[in-house]
Amino acid sequence: MGQKSIKVTAPATVSNCGPGFDIMGFAINTPVEEMIVRLTNKPGIRISKIVGDKNKLPLDVKKNTATVALHHMLARVESKFGVELEIKKKMISGSGLGSSAASAVAAPFALNELLGKPFTKKELMEFALLGEEVASGSIHADNVAPCLLGGFVLIRGYNPLDIIPLAAPKDMFCTILHPQFEIKTSEARKLIRKNFYLHDVITQTGNVAGLVTGLLKNNYELIKRSLHDLIAEPARATLIPGFYEIKEAALSHGSIGCSISGSGPAIFALSKSQEEGIAIGRAMKKVSSKYTKENIVHVSPINRVGPRIIG
Amino acid sequence: MGQKSIKVTAPATVSNCGPGFDIMGFAINTPVEEMIVRLTNKPGIRISKIVGDKNKLPLDVKKNTATVALHHMLARVESKFGVELEIKKKMISGSGLGSSAASAVAAPFALNELLGKPFTKKELMEFALLGEEVASGSIHADNVAPCLLGGFVLIRGYNPLDIIPLAAPKDMFCTILHPQFEIKTSEARKLIRKNFYLHDVITQTGNVAGLVTGLLKNNYELIKRSLHDLIAEPARATLIPGFYEIKEAALSHGSIGCSISGSGPAIFALSKSQEEGIAIGRAMKKVSSKYTKENIVHVSPINRVGPRIIG
Repeated sequence: MGQKSIKVTAPATVSNCGPGFDIMGFAINTPVEEMIVRLTNKPGIRISKIVGDKNKLPLDVKKNTATVALHHMLARVESKFGVELEIKKKMISGSGLGSSAASAVAAPFALNELLGKPFTKKELMEFALLGEEVASGSIHADNVAPCLLGGFVLIRGYNPLDIIPLAAPKDMFCTILHPQFEIKTSEARKLIRKNFYLHDVITQTGNVAGLVTGLLKNNYELIKRSLHDLIAEPARATLIPGFYEIKEAALSHGSIGCSISGSGPAIFALSKSQEEGIAIGRAMKKVSSKYTKENIVHVSPINRVGPRIIG
Repeated sequence: MGQKSIKVTAPATVSNCGPGFDIMGFAINTPVEEMIVRLTNKPGIRISKIVGDKNKLPLDVKKNTATVALHHMLARVESKFGVELEIKKKMISGSGLGSSAASAVAAPFALNELLGKPFTKKELMEFALLGEEVASGSIHADNVAPCLLGGFVLIRGYNPLDIIPLAAPKDMFCTILHPQFEIKTSEARKLIRKNFYLHDVITQTGNVAGLVTGLLKNNYELIKRSLHDLIAEPARATLIPGFYEIKEAALSHGSIGCSISGSGPAIFALSKSQEEGIAIGRAMKKVSSKYTKENIVHVSPINRVGPRIIG
């Protein structure tokens, strides 16, 4: 056994991305999940501590996405060692930023590095998805896949799982406004209609096709015209005080598209530069502060690499 | 007034393209519509003859898509001349190959050439769409746009009309099987469900995003995995005897995707070479002949230029 411990980060992710409900996501540089993974002589998987989670996350290794992912990974390794985790949450669960996916990705990524990379990214994806499953109750790849791969990712289908990395325009920035309250994904999911009119399906398919084309062709104007969602946003906007006013503030300050990140309450707004991203964040926060006491803003480029080793 | 007459072709088009119901289409080199447009001293628009239409198409200039398109075009020209058309249909109406759109495109394209190109392609699009409207009762661009522009085209939205040309893989061929009977677009439209489950919407958006990505990235395997339609094909397949058996024959002979062209009965099958396209056509025809007496097969590359001047 070589190196005994490693410190990694895994990026926050924005799923749905407007019209890509359940099929698209992208990774950003901040916030991140930080995790230390240690090899130990005592077999088994343990979480030694979790900080920054306001005591919300399970230390129980059968319930935490990080340890469940590791459990599936270790089942494929001839191991006499044990693994111990320290998790530093910089994004809390129920934020809409893929917090549980970041845990599910960070742990197997870190252990794979410690073991000398016996597993491919595809195998790590499998472990991370099985980890994420304990949080969401079913296999969802729209946070896990961009978290592990970086960039924008399309989940073409689930049967079988078909993950397609997409390019992202070079200068793209993402502003996150995170009003400090929690939305349970399961509750947010219940709000979504079960039936859609043909007319809405045509509009949604047109917009998702336009968004993908805009991303692949570096066409910001097309991205802007395409970033509309008829599925999740109209339902979930009701959970976020001042949502449409916040969105309007982002768009009127130059954002090329703004919608709810995952199931919220975080809101993402894309832009063409860091300056614009900062101005957009300021404008969003100003409006949101009228409705929600605490609001955190992150401005960062698209993360293009997935998790990183930081120590 | 310079040249007094011109002979042009406008390409057949495949709309829907699988998952792109109402939002995608592409043009092919055969079959084509052939049209002679003449300037005359006598003001007004006339159709001198239509051949190949089995006497189905209206000579009435208020009902034919070609002359309605010209009517809107001439309203924008200071003209003392008249225009006379001869139309040679090589694809009949009710084929699913965009026959009425080809007429609506060919006429303004030809007149624009005769007049020294006073109008842009965008303006020609407007005239063609107004022409096509008399055939379908509403503005539909998924045949007109690829017919005029060539290649694959995305209609991102209709409000306002947002037409996005897409790349097409270089070596792509399209086989058309055209069983010789007619399907009325209006009848075929009535068969389509008015409501769709969320689950189906997710599948359809994933596939349309995958198809666009495959086209833009030259990824035949991705195109193949994405070319599935839950909206039109299941409803309209009932109108085409042996449809699923014909599709299976195409796929088992190497097609990278097969579905109904427009509202049928023509069926398109994409492939990676002319040889494959020919073999696919032979296989499709063999099966279809069990159910429908007459079947015509066309194998051609993707048309990348739109209408052409041929004399």
